[in-house]
Amino acid sequence: MSSDSRFSSIKFSPTPASVPPPGARLRTKELQNVPVNYQPLNPLSFILRAAHVYPNKVALVHPDVPSPVIYTFSVWAQRIQNLAYALIRSGIQPGDRVAVIAPNCPLIADAHHGVLAARAILCPINTRLKPHEVEYILGHSGSKLILVDHEYRNLIPPNTNVPVIVSKDTGRADDPYEGFLSQGRAFSQEKGWQGLETQHDENAGATLCYTSGTTGRPKGVIATLRGSYLAAIANAFEGRLNKESTYLWILPMFHAAGWTYPWANVFAFSTQISLRTVNYTHIWNHLLHSGVTHYCGAPTVQIGIINDPLARELSRPVTAIIAGAAPTAHLIAELERKGINPVHVYGLTETYGPFTRNYRQDHWEKVSLDERARFMARQGHAFVTADDARVVTVEEGSDILKDVPADGKTLGEIVTRGNIYFNDPAATKKAFRGGFFNTGDLAVMYPDGSVSIMDRSKDIIISGGENASSLAIEQELASHPHVLEVSVIARNHPKWGERPMAFVILHPQHIARWKGRFHEFGEDLKSHAKKRLPGFACPEWVEVVPELPKTSTGKILKTELRRIVAKL
Amino acid sequence: MSSDSRFSSIKFSPTPASVPPPGARLRTKELQNVPVNYQPLNPLSFILRAAHVYPNKVALVHPDVPSPVIYTFSVWAQRIQNLAYALIRSGIQPGDRVAVIAPNCPLIADAHHGVLAARAILCPINTRLKPHEVEYILGHSGSKLILVDHEYRNLIPPNTNVPVIVSKDTGRADDPYEGFLSQGRAFSQEKGWQGLETQHDENAGATLCYTSGTTGRPKGVIATLRGSYLAAIANAFEGRLNKESTYLWILPMFHAAGWTYPWANVFAFSTQISLRTVNYTHIWNHLLHSGVTHYCGAPTVQIGIINDPLARELSRPVTAIIAGAAPTAHLIAELERKGINPVHVYGLTETYGPFTRNYRQDHWEKVSLDERARFMARQGHAFVTADDARVVTVEEGSDILKDVPADGKTLGEIVTRGNIYFNDPAATKKAFRGGFFNTGDLAVMYPDGSVSIMDRSKDIIISGGENASSLAIEQELASHPHVLEVSVIARNHPKWGERPMAFVILHPQHIARWKGRFHEFGEDLKSHAKKRLPGFACPEWVEVVPELPKTSTGKILKTELRRIVAKL
Repeated sequence: MSSDSRFSSIKFSPTPASVPPPGARLRTKELQNVPVNYQPLNPLSFILRAAHVYPNKVALVHPDVPSPVIYTFSVWAQRIQNLAYALIRSGIQPGDRVAVIAPNCPLIADAHHGVLAARAILCPINTRLKPHEVEYILGHSGSKLILVDHEYRNLIPPNTNVPVIVSKDTGRADDPYEGFLSQGRAFSQEKGWQGLETQHDENAGATLCYTSGTTGRPKGVIATLRGSYLAAIANAFEGRLNKESTYLWILPMFHAAGWTYPWANVFAFSTQISLRTVNYTHIWNHLLHSGVTHYCGAPTVQIGIINDPLARELSRPVTAIIAGAAPTAHLIAELERKGINPVHVYGLTETYGPFTRNYRQDHWEKVSLDERARFMARQGHAFVTADDARVVTVEEGSDILKDVPADGKTLGEIVTRGNIYFNDPAATKKAFRGGFFNTGDLAVMYPDGSVSIMDRSKDIIISGGENASSLAIEQELASHPHVLEVSVIARNHPKWGERPMAFVILHPQHIARWKGRFHEFGEDLKSHAKKRLPGFACPEWVEVVPELPKTSTGKILKTELRRIVAKL
Repeated sequence: MSSDSRFSSIKFSPTPASVPPPGARLRTKELQNVPVNYQPLNPLSFILRAAHVYPNKVALVHPDVPSPVIYTFSVWAQRIQNLAYALIRSGIQPGDRVAVIAPNCPLIADAHHGVLAARAILCPINTRLKPHEVEYILGHSGSKLILVDHEYRNLIPPNTNVPVIVSKDTGRADDPYEGFLSQGRAFSQEKGWQGLETQHDENAGATLCYTSGTTGRPKGVIATLRGSYLAAIANAFEGRLNKESTYLWILPMFHAAGWTYPWANVFAFSTQISLRTVNYTHIWNHLLHSGVTHYCGAPTVQIGIINDPLARELSRPVTAIIAGAAPTAHLIAELERKGINPVHVYGLTETYGPFTRNYRQDHWEKVSLDERARFMARQGHAFVTADDARVVTVEEGSDILKDVPADGKTLGEIVTRGNIYFNDPAATKKAFRGGFFNTGDLAVMYPDGSVSIMDRSKDIIISGGENASSLAIEQELASHPHVLEVSVIARNHPKWGERPMAFVILHPQHIARWKGRFHEFGEDLKSHAKKRLPGFACPEWVEVVPELPKTSTGKILKTELRRIVAKL
């Protein structure tokens, strides 16, 4: 067993089925009849290698639950093997989909490797969805088995006809999930990894994720083994993860397969700490006392972190990978003040999470924080394994992509290529108009080749015939010291067609000052905006609100705000 | 231009043809008719990306020559593009081989990228070979064009009928190589990267390297684009190269394509400093004053570094990647004393250089240096992209590989899989007996899964019926404080069949003490050996020599020693 003093307070013994036999060979069955120089890329190889090189290193810790657990790479690999055999025993065939509905916990961490070891496809489902949405995804994905955390059983249709395995998240022998794993171990008859067939096709599916989307039905995106392998390595490299790293799971693993970090961390031999919920007390406890070096999160979560009463300067550098929206100057300054280094990345479920990164440039060190924040808010340049990030326009009815001039002004759509495809050939064709994946995000390209998102196409405000970017307006309004969060949408205007309306959450420290005087705050914010924005982009209306409607993944639901505005 | 103060003493302007036009798109022509989710892996993508993200960062410095040069990623990428067009203009077709004969210098650095951009295969030739060997390689490889450094023109057969481009290594407009590049630029008609076809087949050849071998004809090994891409990323990750890194080129780039570091450094955005020769004064100058963080080298080179009069403790951590032979306890201690962190890797030309690494384990910190050195001398575990490193035996006439027990004792052959193949299908088949590449290195596997090479099969000494590993004997003899280098071979013995004979170079600091008393030193070394080795492994004879015969890549030529012994 490991002797990591950071987690010595966790008293836990893995189940007998989780303990590997000594000297087991950590390779799936050798491929026959493939060229000798071909090794299919598969992120499953990472856990086998980690268990081979660092068997006794702490791989996965799940501390803040009634029954905390801690697994070394060696034990974790055995559990993953058990899961693969248990799935096969349950009738899972190569290419079948296995759903998992769970918050961050060993169940979903295991599934990212174990489902692949059974040559099946993992379908992680957002726990914040409504039962009818879960039902749609289970049906559309054709999931043949469901792994579910006890807290989310109610999301599963009662009349489901596929096996449901419940985890009580205890890691104890009497947990039904542990029983399932033990059955897998018994079923394997100790043939071990060599009893599992190697997936010969690196273009086989690894995960089937559904985008939470702000409108319409969830869309299914199949990621390949090859693409997941490459994206995981890219994320490990870009994040500078290594054996000394400790990664804190704040981002849900079900969100775009955790941006491939479930594999990236294992590739890098990092230790992972899993948190069921976004609890800032727990987060700060781990930042301060568990040697955390890395975490991922949307700006909303980052704001929660810097504003928590426990927040203080850390003695060790921590890297915060930020995606979902651009970090504001205020957020960057507050993170840096705490010794947290913000890294801004951009991506979609269709691109395995991050596919561009904001690459820091030397000359940024010489400019003001506000200016640097504007640079850091850019989505930047393509990741190494993402091939390309272009900003293009397409003439109506044509299929030819034309790059916009790199002038920082001309609006186009970000398109990329990568190792991705869809469930549905027609949808794939549409999504890849011109041979590139069309993100739907509108952006400009700067002379240095970096891209900057101005808006989702539908979020552009057409004010007096001018295109006003709601993101750019939000970015400027967020620089007001009393603003905690802000969202801007279009509201009809009799003269200008549309005008921006801002919904604002006040900073808790300043809320008392404006009590009963929200109108005055609105005027203050408008005059702040006038100094920074062209007239057509200044908000005509400011509404102070206690909270903003958000998707299950923390994105602000502008559709909800539009519904409110439509009634005004 | 860059403003890297470390190299401000270099006054140099690139030729007009080396200066890229503003705003050029840094992508080769988009592929048509390939699946939208397929991006062929190609290490050429690294330089395009580096020039896109960090155009003004210093990429390549060549300082210790009469006409020093310094190139940013942007300028270097343009030169690489020019080289590709110049090759195409000269009639080079996809798949053709282009030879390069040069020490470390921009010519060979350019060629690692530019030849790939022309979709041709780079054939780097060892400058230390004899003209008849070079002639053989040029003929066998079918090279269609030769890039040669002015100092090595004499290696080229005078009657060659392929174009020869000479570099005077000046970077100036009047250099014939620069003229060649300028012709390429003119030929491109400013179509730039988009005028170059993208290689659609990631399994196309990248390099054709000839192993210098200690016996027989050089053997040609073709490395694929895919394999080179993956190995380069693995080396960047394993070496923890990043944008802040400065890599010193001591290892010749022609040696197994520089172990893929010509691409790994560009992938990581590192700065590379090139040295034409192994000059310890220059090496220490750069270690002390140029911010070097990484270099690669065989133990022989490392010994030269620690024993140089300029050697001192460095103020910055430096990583030394060691391959070719295992580092001794003395070498490890001396490197660490200077702030140099030794990383022991193992590989062959057939495996893109490194394919295993000695992964440091926590419990090594608690043992004596001698014991830790024994751990660090192991070749360790497979690299992430190397898939596997097994130690096996094959029954005569069979094709089935059987793993040896992981007992640290049973001898077998190291075999691996990877993305490699050969020129010659019959040779490939033989080399891949059992579906794995047979390295010819004999090793044991320890219970922790790490491998340790005992010998090349032909270097085993059969002494009194026992197998004595010449490497293990060398390792123990090297622990004598007066030994600088040692090589052990078998010598016939009337009673025991064979017995070990040791050839020793004395440490310069201790040579005076033993002057005229080499026999006494021999006795001293034998009694040192008796305390550490079984009787059958103790050297029967010790010969003090001023130097050891070596291959052009610094490996000790045991064949030469055997020839000497045969005459005794």
